[in-house]
Amino acid sequence: MTEPSAVTREIRWNEQGLVPAIAQDWQTGEVLMLAWMNSDALELTIREGRAIYWSRSRQALWRKGEESGHVQQLKELRIDCDADTVLMKVDQVGGIACHTGRRSCFYRVLESGDWRVTDVVLKRPDEIYGKESSTRKESSTKKESSTRKKP
Amino acid sequence: MTEPSAVTREIRWNEQGLVPAIAQDWQTGEVLMLAWMNSDALELTIREGRAIYWSRSRQALWRKGEESGHVQQLKELRIDCDADTVLMKVDQVGGIACHTGRRSCFYRVLESGDWRVTDVVLKRPDEIYGKESSTRKESSTKKESSTRKKP
Repeated sequence: MTEPSAVTREIRWNEQGLVPAIAQDWQTGEVLMLAWMNSDALELTIREGRAIYWSRSRQALWRKGEESGHVQQLKELRIDCDADTVLMKVDQVGGIACHTGRRSCFYRVLESGDWRVTDVVLKRPDEIYGKESSTRKESSTKKESSTRKKP
Repeated sequence: MTEPSAVTREIRWNEQGLVPAIAQDWQTGEVLMLAWMNSDALELTIREGRAIYWSRSRQALWRKGEESGHVQQLKELRIDCDADTVLMKVDQVGGIACHTGRRSCFYRVLESGDWRVTDVVLKRPDEIYGKESSTRKESSTKKESSTRKKP
């Protein structure tokens, strides 16, 4: 457990001790993903200068890129008026934020009443995480976390 | 209660029946705010072509701009890989998304271990909501929602 600093003490954590954290490309402005942070994750993000989330499914710190290499280098960190959401401007190493191998996780757009995929897969997940998909921690974590529908 | 369509049935709502919704300026790419939507809010956002959130404090639909006039016209709607976060590209009427009268809610940046305000107030809240601050529904809702720390 990291000692909370003045910076993290100001955050209004939800009852699970988490806040949503948005990662945005620092140059293009593209929104890459949304994940969650606890106090430790935010402290470490600041200290290490890279995005570190809290994996709700694994209940463990998730150093973005720890397996994929797709690290998010922190360029700027912001909080909103209520101090309950974090916005990071990041340099996305490898140009891929999504575990599906796409640049952004927001690759589906609403069109004519359906969700249409707009972005191409830049690198196949088995190339990113290796052939054994069961050990794809990042990918399975993301899937598990949403399946379990944790806030 | 609105009948859920194929579009909203695909969303993975959290256990409160909500998902975070990010509003991004459709032209500049600036992230303006994050609020929450339930199924009805998302259906109505699509139907009416403007951002409609779920106010966690009031437990009611919140038509963004209903008091301030700062409506968010929907330009594009996206979901992420897990279908548990919504991203809207919007035309921000009045150029002000935040109840403090600033363009974006993310007006504080981390600098030298402290949160520094970077954005100016474009319009004072009493000019936006009227002199009687107690009736500022949008503003107080935002404050209440974070104070109560609902997810």
